Amino acid sequence: MIWGGIEAGGTKFVCAVAAEDGKILERTQFPTDSPVPTVAKAIEFFRNYSDLAGIGIASFGPVELSAGRITSTPKPGWRNFGIADAVADKLGVKVAFDTDVNAAALGEWKWGAARGLDTFLYLTIGTGIGGGAMAGSRLIHGLHHPEMGHIRVPHDGSFAGVCPYHGDCLEGLACGKAMEERCGRPAEELPVDDPVWQEEARLLAHGVVNWICTLSPQLIIMGGGVMKRTTLFPAVRTRVSALLNAYVPIPEIVPPALGDDAGVLGAIGLCL
Amino acid sequence: MIWGGIEAGGTKFVCAVAAEDGKILERTQFPTDSPVPTVAKAIEFFRNYSDLAGIGIASFGPVELSAGRITSTPKPGWRNFGIADAVADKLGVKVAFDTDVNAAALGEWKWGAARGLDTFLYLTIGTGIGGGAMAGSRLIHGLHHPEMGHIRVPHDGSFAGVCPYHGDCLEGLACGKAMEERCGRPAEELPVDDPVWQEEARLLAHGVVNWICTLSPQLIIMGGGVMKRTTLFPAVRTRVSALLNAYVPIPEIVPPALGDDAGVLGAIGLCL
Repeated sequence: MIWGGIEAGGTKFVCAVAAEDGKILERTQFPTDSPVPTVAKAIEFFRNYSDLAGIGIASFGPVELSAGRITSTPKPGWRNFGIADAVADKLGVKVAFDTDVNAAALGEWKWGAARGLDTFLYLTIGTGIGGGAMAGSRLIHGLHHPEMGHIRVPHDGSFAGVCPYHGDCLEGLACGKAMEERCGRPAEELPVDDPVWQEEARLLAHGVVNWICTLSPQLIIMGGGVMKRTTLFPAVRTRVSALLNAYVPIPEIVPPALGDDAGVLGAIGLCL
Repeated sequence: MIWGGIEAGGTKFVCAVAAEDGKILERTQFPTDSPVPTVAKAIEFFRNYSDLAGIGIASFGPVELSAGRITSTPKPGWRNFGIADAVADKLGVKVAFDTDVNAAALGEWKWGAARGLDTFLYLTIGTGIGGGAMAGSRLIHGLHHPEMGHIRVPHDGSFAGVCPYHGDCLEGLACGKAMEERCGRPAEELPVDDPVWQEEARLLAHGVVNWICTLSPQLIIMGGGVMKRTTLFPAVRTRVSALLNAYVPIPEIVPPALGDDAGVLGAIGLCL
């Protein structure tokens, strides 16, 4: 018996199959195109496995969890696309569905950095900014699902932000796209001493402080493309410590133990 | 069998005894003095009940939950005071202990506005600002416990804030004490059309938006002295809606169904 996972990201899709122990047997990835051809590529990958017991989908959001569909995304063509049904109809297996960041949190809890914890936070800082969290050993869902990247934090107003819904929410100010718009080239090309990294650390630290004060996580995992610039970790830690001023204890802030597989493994974890 | 509860607030202590159904049999309250005389008054109240099965303490914070003590409070005399042991030693009953806001959330869940919900938020806007939350029908604790009032939100910098740890965190900007410092008199004396109420609604709305994005609560309950100015409810709702811009659904925002008894009933709920 093997299990499938789709990390449906705004930039790329990752598909993988794994045994119950979370060992990936095969993995593929491709850029996110419009819904129909993108899902067709995923189906093609899974068609090779006749013993597929189920598929988990970890989707970019916002989503309507019960309907298995993406809702108010600014991403062309994906608004109100029912990805869970589209996959289930074609493959005839049970499909589990959650947000990409909730799934990644689950993956890190089952097989990665958050094993044994009951309350922790997984963040991704990439094309967008998102967070998934567990409290009391359960993923937080609630009325809808967390959309952590869209919190508001203090900033100097010199940059209007890129979020099409909020402008200067944290995602609008600090996601990879925001950094690129600020500097005119992709974040990964910016030298380590570019002042934009200081501002990035300052913004992310404000987000982290707000999540520490709200959730009191035992651990914070920060993944995503922007966090590949690993100097951000000590820079964020220093600022979080200064902002909290010893008022409450600060959890460890670490990269995902599962690296770039956190999302797709978490997707598999959803259907196990 | 009856159960006791102490709402140990920074301004006042509320003590009550109740049956298992949450019906309060007797209740008293008195101003918070230094620890020893304040706890002595509480003990005196409970001494009248020979059939007391246990006492729950809902304490202002921050606290060390496992030790039942208050930690880094700026409140004179209370820093590192072990209130749970002080009560248990004198009364010889089991003592349960949590933050005031977690207890109030529990009270509203057992007997009030949050019955039947699994993920919701209880906020108090009073002398300080605090929040307790449930996710998956359990109170959020984590590494420490939430200290929600200390999140950072955008503001224009015209007021430095009153928080001795952070200056301009949300509590520092928007608690009752901050309003008083801003205006030179207690919030309840400020006329309804004073512009400070607009700024208060703006600040609280930013907090509420951040908590909606982080926890996705099914309901937000807002209590505490400042929220007695009930015009704040529609003012906060309007601003939350504008800030979120239809990106995610907005939960109802309501006063505590248990009114001023949410804290002390929640304290009782802790030991049931």
